[in-house]
Amino acid sequence: MARSLGRIFRGFQSLGSLAFMKSELSNPPASVSLKSMVQTLPSLFSSNPRDFSLPNPSWGTEMRQLYEHYNSQCEAVTDGGEEQSGLWKRLPSYNRSLKYAAGGVHLSKIIQAKARLFTRNIRDPGAAFEYVIFANKKEQRCVCIFQAGHLLEGPPGNVHGGAIATMIDTVTGTHACVHSGPVMTANLNINYRSPIPLGSTVLIESSLDKKEGRKTFISCNVTSADGTRLHTEATALFVSISVGQLMKG
Amino acid sequence: MARSLGRIFRGFQSLGSLAFMKSELSNPPASVSLKSMVQTLPSLFSSNPRDFSLPNPSWGTEMRQLYEHYNSQCEAVTDGGEEQSGLWKRLPSYNRSLKYAAGGVHLSKIIQAKARLFTRNIRDPGAAFEYVIFANKKEQRCVCIFQAGHLLEGPPGNVHGGAIATMIDTVTGTHACVHSGPVMTANLNINYRSPIPLGSTVLIESSLDKKEGRKTFISCNVTSADGTRLHTEATALFVSISVGQLMKG
Repeated sequence: MARSLGRIFRGFQSLGSLAFMKSELSNPPASVSLKSMVQTLPSLFSSNPRDFSLPNPSWGTEMRQLYEHYNSQCEAVTDGGEEQSGLWKRLPSYNRSLKYAAGGVHLSKIIQAKARLFTRNIRDPGAAFEYVIFANKKEQRCVCIFQAGHLLEGPPGNVHGGAIATMIDTVTGTHACVHSGPVMTANLNINYRSPIPLGSTVLIESSLDKKEGRKTFISCNVTSADGTRLHTEATALFVSISVGQLMKG
Repeated sequence: MARSLGRIFRGFQSLGSLAFMKSELSNPPASVSLKSMVQTLPSLFSSNPRDFSLPNPSWGTEMRQLYEHYNSQCEAVTDGGEEQSGLWKRLPSYNRSLKYAAGGVHLSKIIQAKARLFTRNIRDPGAAFEYVIFANKKEQRCVCIFQAGHLLEGPPGNVHGGAIATMIDTVTGTHACVHSGPVMTANLNINYRSPIPLGSTVLIESSLDKKEGRKTFISCNVTSADGTRLHTEATALFVSISVGQLMKG
């Protein structure tokens, strides 16, 4: 295999909650119907997992305005049931990856069940990562609106470089998945230009540079919400994987 | 100034809790002595903040064994009060940066007071980042033992690339601070070679490549605890800053 291909990207996160539910409920007690069981189970097993990319009361004015700006240009279904085309598509975001694990041998079943997506591991709204990603397939770009909460501190009053790297990986990786299907991150190269103050809202914009065989190259800028200040620049390389590789780890 | 120097590194985090306490207590009620006030205040104001780099019950066997390996080679003070030299020095780790903020305009006082270091923002032992860093000044290298908890998931069953980047930034940045004093991260270039299973313990080893004027170059490898598997390779560039710059943001 040699020095291979980084890590599997979490492009399947949106399947997570359903896959989890299915496996947990595969052997219900004989006397209870699956349907009634689902209805009485706690929210962990809900078939309507929380979509973290929808507005919540912690969102500030800039975050809301930017959300409305892109959301108003999104694909939609009208009240009459007609599909309306749009430049953008909002991507939902949940807090679980697929349940079955590549590294299962290292994990007890309990730890696995408790696993949460790194960027959605704190439920307190506004405390950590608040973000929503919109994809524009026609123009091959994505935009993420990101509001950085007080639990992401690095330098005094500013966002941790690792938290910025995390959002860059998330946005470029999501973009690569939208374009190329399942991928793993192989390289991230990040230049930090100016600090991001804690509590502020920034724009993360990614564009497709090229695709060569199994490799997808994405670039990304992080700017202030009004676009006047460049905070961070990055390039990212992703490598396509088969579903078999995904399961093997 | 131009496209400048990234973000201020959190090399001052060890001062955080004390700086915070000092400022909170600068105007105690006249009838209460500062000393008695400190004694009755809750742990938030304690002059002995929790050092997150000490062993706790969530640490697995590998984490404990590696900790003992390096800790036994550390500088120490004997029972008789004598200072004992050692190859390594364990670096303490707290959950606050300095209180006063570069980005203060963006923050209410409430948010600022609640700010927590990104890598120490979850108190539940074992759930997220468990790590300890040892520095070897003579050989100009650092080693970090890192146990990845279930809240750091990216790809199914594996650690999120952003969480790995966060630890790489933390270890190389700490190393740069030990060598050069206050610095900001300017670049991180990370190659992901193989995924890190959730729940596993890895070694992050950094070495000083060179120092040129204000620039400090550090390299870093992430391997399995037994050193046989390379997970991630990275280079990092840090730029020295003055305390004036730190305060200005």
